[in-house]
Amino acid sequence: MKIAVYGMGRFGSFWASILARQFSVSGFSRSGRSFSESIGIIRDEAEFAEFDVVFLCCAISAVEEVLERISPLLKQDAVVIDTCSVKVEPVRLMKRLLPESCGIIATHPMFGPDSGRAGVAGLPIVYYPVRDTGGCGDFWHGVFKDMGMVIHEMTPDQHDEEAAFTQGITHFIGRVLKELDLKDSSIATLGYKKLQEIVEQTCNDPLQLFLDLQRYNPHTAEMRIRLKKALHDTMALF
Amino acid sequence: MKIAVYGMGRFGSFWASILARQFSVSGFSRSGRSFSESIGIIRDEAEFAEFDVVFLCCAISAVEEVLERISPLLKQDAVVIDTCSVKVEPVRLMKRLLPESCGIIATHPMFGPDSGRAGVAGLPIVYYPVRDTGGCGDFWHGVFKDMGMVIHEMTPDQHDEEAAFTQGITHFIGRVLKELDLKDSSIATLGYKKLQEIVEQTCNDPLQLFLDLQRYNPHTAEMRIRLKKALHDTMALF
Repeated sequence: MKIAVYGMGRFGSFWASILARQFSVSGFSRSGRSFSESIGIIRDEAEFAEFDVVFLCCAISAVEEVLERISPLLKQDAVVIDTCSVKVEPVRLMKRLLPESCGIIATHPMFGPDSGRAGVAGLPIVYYPVRDTGGCGDFWHGVFKDMGMVIHEMTPDQHDEEAAFTQGITHFIGRVLKELDLKDSSIATLGYKKLQEIVEQTCNDPLQLFLDLQRYNPHTAEMRIRLKKALHDTMALF
Repeated sequence: MKIAVYGMGRFGSFWASILARQFSVSGFSRSGRSFSESIGIIRDEAEFAEFDVVFLCCAISAVEEVLERISPLLKQDAVVIDTCSVKVEPVRLMKRLLPESCGIIATHPMFGPDSGRAGVAGLPIVYYPVRDTGGCGDFWHGVFKDMGMVIHEMTPDQHDEEAAFTQGITHFIGRVLKELDLKDSSIATLGYKKLQEIVEQTCNDPLQLFLDLQRYNPHTAEMRIRLKKALHDTMALF
């Protein structure tokens, strides 16, 4: 089984290196960046015709144009698996743009190169078989399970609602605090150090991820309205 | 040496239990709450006349009236040490209201019953000898050092500026997020769990501490203005 990873940014490189422990994996980077020797290099999008499974690790906002370009190239029985941090929108696009014969699985690994540095065992992954062709759903469910990930099967909308008020709010707070340029302090409390860790971890991810998390998740608008109200109510105490 | 702790709330009880490991310690609680057997009970404020050292562990907003009531009762050479989370205001009050003959030390242990649960060694304490009578400054500096605390000597204003942008902002974020009633989630990221820990830890402290941190630290107003601006700028992206 030949696996391709589309998008070798911070998350894609990390994800490819995990898969490469047990599969033959190649990566495609539009910016032509180099990556680890264990990963094959896809130099041209035309090569996607050779792969059995394609993981989408591009920016959420790039999913539509990526699918439009690679859809006509894919093997008839290829399986496409996205890893986006929102689920409703990419699932809609995959269903609309991929050939009927292709398998489709939606995933969201709830970790990245920072939180998964010590390994992915015990870390959560959201999983939803959208078009379960040729047993691809069971197969990848089994692979993630064997890797020790904790699999949560839920609909794209369930995911987006829950993610808006967990990952979405965490990234929002991280970016707000980044604006304040929090300094190290000799008198830092434990709570303040945790706040700094949140800023560091969320802002280590590309700005595009933050923007896309807010723009492409239909539930983040409500989260932002509630956050704004909570801030105003708390400010009003003084 | 007989030590009294004025205010046996969440922090006072914790602080008294630490001191009681090597000193004879009694506590006074206006609400008459009971506490650990290793701590003597002061039933009436008149008894403060018997103590050599008085730690103030009352609410910041109560310091003025507490000092007004106990100042006339204190031994001539008593040493009064506050533990407030702001420093400019209590130092001003101690200098104004305590007899000239009393020693005065300002401290802020940058930890509490949660962060200090596993012991206070390695944890920071802010320390400032305001009126160093009878060697009290060196003595208590030595005691805190022997307990393993990391001592940071700084002026009350230096403390308040740094604390506004560390402890002050952490408590503010904690209280804002408390309003949103963040739920546990099976798909929680590591960052979200840290956010929940901050809410839990800051909101475990009494609401009065949060209000006083914001009201009695002259630098928190600027922190709140900057935080509000950062939130608005980030909201404006969407």
